Amino acid sequence: MSVVRYAPFASSVDPGFWHKLSAKKLDEYGLDDSARCIHGFYTNGSAAGIAPFVTVDHSAFSSEWAPPRRSFTANGVLYVINTIDKFKDMDKKALLVTESNKLWENIKTGAVLQSPEKLCPFVLLTFADLKKYHFYYWFAFPALKFPEKPTSFTELPVTLQQKLSEKELACLVSAYDTFQNNLETFSGFFLVKQTGENFVVDSFSNIDEALASNDTVMIGVCDPSSVPDHPGWPLRNLVSFLTYRFNGRLKTATVLCVRDRTQDGVRDFGNGLVFSVELIPQEESALAAVPECVGWEKNERQKLGPRMVNLSGCMDPTRLAESAVDLNLKLMRWRLLPDLKLEKIAATKCLVLGSGTLGCNVARLLMGWGMRHITMVDNSKVSYSNPVRQSLFTFEHCLQGGQPKAQAAAESLKTIFPGMKSEGISLSIPMPGHTITDSMLQQTQADVRKLEELIESHDAIFLLMDTRESRWLPSLVAAAKKKIVINAALGFDTFLVLRHGLKKDGVAMEAGNSVNMNRVPGCQLGCYFCNDVVAPGNSTRDRTLDQQCTVTRPGLSMVASALAVELLVSILQHPLGAEAPADTSSSDDHFLFDSECSLGVVPHQIRGFLSRFHQILPASQAFSMCTACCPVVLERYRTEGFDFLLRAFNEVGYLEELTGLAAMQDATLDIEVLEFSDDDDDLSLETS
Amino acid sequence: MSVVRYAPFASSVDPGFWHKLSAKKLDEYGLDDSARCIHGFYTNGSAAGIAPFVTVDHSAFSSEWAPPRRSFTANGVLYVINTIDKFKDMDKKALLVTESNKLWENIKTGAVLQSPEKLCPFVLLTFADLKKYHFYYWFAFPALKFPEKPTSFTELPVTLQQKLSEKELACLVSAYDTFQNNLETFSGFFLVKQTGENFVVDSFSNIDEALASNDTVMIGVCDPSSVPDHPGWPLRNLVSFLTYRFNGRLKTATVLCVRDRTQDGVRDFGNGLVFSVELIPQEESALAAVPECVGWEKNERQKLGPRMVNLSGCMDPTRLAESAVDLNLKLMRWRLLPDLKLEKIAATKCLVLGSGTLGCNVARLLMGWGMRHITMVDNSKVSYSNPVRQSLFTFEHCLQGGQPKAQAAAESLKTIFPGMKSEGISLSIPMPGHTITDSMLQQTQADVRKLEELIESHDAIFLLMDTRESRWLPSLVAAAKKKIVINAALGFDTFLVLRHGLKKDGVAMEAGNSVNMNRVPGCQLGCYFCNDVVAPGNSTRDRTLDQQCTVTRPGLSMVASALAVELLVSILQHPLGAEAPADTSSSDDHFLFDSECSLGVVPHQIRGFLSRFHQILPASQAFSMCTACCPVVLERYRTEGFDFLLRAFNEVGYLEELTGLAAMQDATLDIEVLEFSDDDDDLSLETS
Repeated sequence: MSVVRYAPFASSVDPGFWHKLSAKKLDEYGLDDSARCIHGFYTNGSAAGIAPFVTVDHSAFSSEWAPPRRSFTANGVLYVINTIDKFKDMDKKALLVTESNKLWENIKTGAVLQSPEKLCPFVLLTFADLKKYHFYYWFAFPALKFPEKPTSFTELPVTLQQKLSEKELACLVSAYDTFQNNLETFSGFFLVKQTGENFVVDSFSNIDEALASNDTVMIGVCDPSSVPDHPGWPLRNLVSFLTYRFNGRLKTATVLCVRDRTQDGVRDFGNGLVFSVELIPQEESALAAVPECVGWEKNERQKLGPRMVNLSGCMDPTRLAESAVDLNLKLMRWRLLPDLKLEKIAATKCLVLGSGTLGCNVARLLMGWGMRHITMVDNSKVSYSNPVRQSLFTFEHCLQGGQPKAQAAAESLKTIFPGMKSEGISLSIPMPGHTITDSMLQQTQADVRKLEELIESHDAIFLLMDTRESRWLPSLVAAAKKKIVINAALGFDTFLVLRHGLKKDGVAMEAGNSVNMNRVPGCQLGCYFCNDVVAPGNSTRDRTLDQQCTVTRPGLSMVASALAVELLVSILQHPLGAEAPADTSSSDDHFLFDSECSLGVVPHQIRGFLSRFHQILPASQAFSMCTACCPVVLERYRTEGFDFLLRAFNEVGYLEELTGLAAMQDATLDIEVLEFSDDDDDLSLETS
Repeated sequence: MSVVRYAPFASSVDPGFWHKLSAKKLDEYGLDDSARCIHGFYTNGSAAGIAPFVTVDHSAFSSEWAPPRRSFTANGVLYVINTIDKFKDMDKKALLVTESNKLWENIKTGAVLQSPEKLCPFVLLTFADLKKYHFYYWFAFPALKFPEKPTSFTELPVTLQQKLSEKELACLVSAYDTFQNNLETFSGFFLVKQTGENFVVDSFSNIDEALASNDTVMIGVCDPSSVPDHPGWPLRNLVSFLTYRFNGRLKTATVLCVRDRTQDGVRDFGNGLVFSVELIPQEESALAAVPECVGWEKNERQKLGPRMVNLSGCMDPTRLAESAVDLNLKLMRWRLLPDLKLEKIAATKCLVLGSGTLGCNVARLLMGWGMRHITMVDNSKVSYSNPVRQSLFTFEHCLQGGQPKAQAAAESLKTIFPGMKSEGISLSIPMPGHTITDSMLQQTQADVRKLEELIESHDAIFLLMDTRESRWLPSLVAAAKKKIVINAALGFDTFLVLRHGLKKDGVAMEAGNSVNMNRVPGCQLGCYFCNDVVAPGNSTRDRTLDQQCTVTRPGLSMVASALAVELLVSILQHPLGAEAPADTSSSDDHFLFDSECSLGVVPHQIRGFLSRFHQILPASQAFSMCTACCPVVLERYRTEGFDFLLRAFNEVGYLEELTGLAAMQDATLDIEVLEFSDDDDDLSLETS
């Protein structure tokens, strides 16, 4: 008698599956490589010459799985392995042992009666190189070696066309459709009973009763194979099931393979097969042990081995970049910081005032942390000395008189990462001491309004400009609007990075000793101007070349920019946000610390001294007479708006009078205020 | 009688002058704005309608000044003012007073007899905005108001053509040429004696004798004016001189203005003028006081005011960029660090091994410090996750499978600054633990040779790769070739920057307590591997995604890169170079230090902890059993070359055996070596 040979399943992986897998790995699995359930499907409609495929696509991960119409479910187990070496080293045999255990259990318990798709399991072993978008994978379609001896036909296959009359065939199709259409999803296994010319198709779960009856019952299989005389893979485990379940009771089983093809637009059931197979009686001992299992798929070279698909070429590069960029960030969360608030960080809209060395580096780092909404502001053009230090500009930006810096920087961010929502705004920030003449009034008013809108529409404001006085207006407006402000300024080899205190309404800002200076609450911290006892004035007049240019050690800007951005991220990560108390503990003990923020301490100021490769973390309290953030200044700004600002711009001494600084100045000991004043030679501000 | 009116000088500034001025300011003047001597010239050959120009060009600053042929010297005083405001505020009147003092002194002392060009001084007041290549300038051609009363003609001008026969004119030309050709440089002032049809031209210095004789002596002036009837500016101070010197002795003087034109290719002296002027007798009192002075040039709008020329558009942009980039660096030297060795820094050839986040940032900063010769090395391609953190790459570099990183980085450096001599080399660095099979042997040998050549041809080697073991071979080769090595590695929020000790031959490397650990000499410092008690091995096998990728806080790379570059620059600036002792003093006292290097301390290691915004500066000594730099390893490398390396790559335990580490391992207390081992979780290396 002729031995039954089964057309094995081949795998078909839709690119959508790999996209979904990438997303799942990034967002959900992380480094967890345990087994996961996925879903695939096959059809019984393949045209002649087409291999029987199990397909997985984007829907494979769906918790509300249903196969496409006229397709049949194959449930799989997915392994997402973390390294190529571990992928290669996986014990393939052991994986199949796991599967054969499950399959055998399902056969023994009869679980396949209710869920006959359990006879078509698959295993998908993957390694996803998400940096390169290379996906390594290997499918197995486990089939039990049970019975051990090959099964033979007791009646050789004949096609339905040969076997049945035209009328009978039509009745079969009708009965099949009726059966399947009554199910939620099509079933690949069923029972077929013929009475005269008539057919009844019944649920597979009734097989015990059906075979016990005297009726002629055929076991129906939706057959993915398109090979004449060779049924497909699903029959193989079905034979194992029948052999086990009816051991000794049945000698043969008649099988009807439905091949539901459409030929030239006409449905054609005629290629289906009918045949009988022997059910070899088994010793009890053979039923006790779990049978062996086979089924690893051969690759393109017809060898047992994994396949690789490189999707980097055929995927949308912009989307590729998006997920690649996400990857680096998510990796931090996976292993190191499970509580890292990546979404909060990514959603933070940043306004970068000043697009010089600090501005360019800060914008790059914000992008590196996943921020997408970055607005660059500057009022100058790219000059030839800029690109070597200002990391968003190239020589091209300098030609023809130079492109506007803010726009050039914003465009560069997009050339680095197309997913950026970056914008560049040319804007001059009005400053105290820079008199507003009548002819400038309208423009100034528009500039103030623009700045107010920008600060309103962003979450974090970076002050990275080249003069002290240009920081006054944004400091004031940001304080009034309660925005996070990060300030950075460079000297020749020293730098200052600080966050402005985020004032709470109604909280007194009295300086005093009642506060533990190792832990000043965020709402009591000073701003950039809180250390000063003079109002900002015109510092640009009469500056020599070394004061106009960035006379700073080149490395300084990268250090200060990095710390400014990391300070912002630490604030965002802290449970209290901008109200996080300032920690000055770095100097106390190098190796032990305890912080509420998983990224570490959240200092008020970082002052760095490159000549000694050294940093300190002082904290200072808000000053009740600060020209930028004290209550009377904020109050005047709220009530008088632009009129107040105009007086501050034009009237020498106005802010000092208003705040009470003027009255205090005589009584102040210079020594108290000079210590870290920005008038120090080595803390002169960085210029664009 | 008709009053003499003089055609005033106009200024003509060749762009070459501004180039030279820019260079002088950058290289020599700095912020010193004191008066400087420069040279200009004028001709007496202007065609009709051409203004009489004093021209300054690139030669104006020459110490071996000579005017072009047939031109006459005008010596000037140059002021290079440092700010536009100071430029505007300069006391123009006071400047002319200074000039009139000099001029009057030269007249009174008779200094003009030997150097009659002293009658044609000029003043050039400038402000050079070297960031924008805008040059503001204002010329004065000082002329004494002496006598106070306008001078009148006593004989009106007639042209030489009218006055002289053809023969006489030819004789005059001949005599003039003979006179001038005998001089080293042409003189604008001389004496002319006519005898019959013959002429003799004599030196201006003989004027006393000549005018005392009874001969008819004309005073010759090379006349820049091309206006009929109006002599040019040089005559004006000449009349002052004559009036002073011959006060009361001469009533008139006859002047011969030579206009040495070429018309239609033919020399034409005929436009010269002859006339007599009155020499108004002066009171003694009028001779005592210094006369007033006039002469500021009018600008394009015919107003007394400065001119501005914008050369940014017409200069070669590449050269503009070159000098703009120089400017920032030189500014440091001008005011802050007069001993800054910019040339030494610029001449340092840097080899950057690894073109990832560290490599890109390091290359940018080297460029910022003026390094031009930078070679980038990497063996991978730009992937989509790279550009947001690796600052020399853009989205474009990722397409089509990604460009080779090293080449892309090197090209980017040129797009930033065209003056870069940057090259990118794709190279895999052979590593211990990564077995070299026979089929790889030839390629490995070529790779080793290439790396050796690269290290040989560079001065400073940056080790910025993604694995520990890839640093072994370059550490060893650089130690053998005695190159400066800067090493940087990143953890998640910690970093390490260190310089390798530069071993001296014959200096024992015994670790011990005999050295003051606050000041370890550069030749006794350890390398990256000196802290380790195991040889480097294959660490890339089986790395999970978070280990393959750069799982580090984005700011970290900028900080570490900046400190790595600043450490190199500090080494270069230190009088002892790489032998500079390691200073660990940052932790002792924040505000006082004393260093031999004007940039500050030169530590051995900088270890940073971003979670605490903190850095420490440990120093450690070379280890006598170091697998990369101890004497026995260096000796084997020198004598056995590649054969030795091959054993190190392939043979597990070979380096440990060779160095004696194997024997020592049992006896070693783990606690001693784990403290800062790179196997610490948080100091896992950064990857490309």
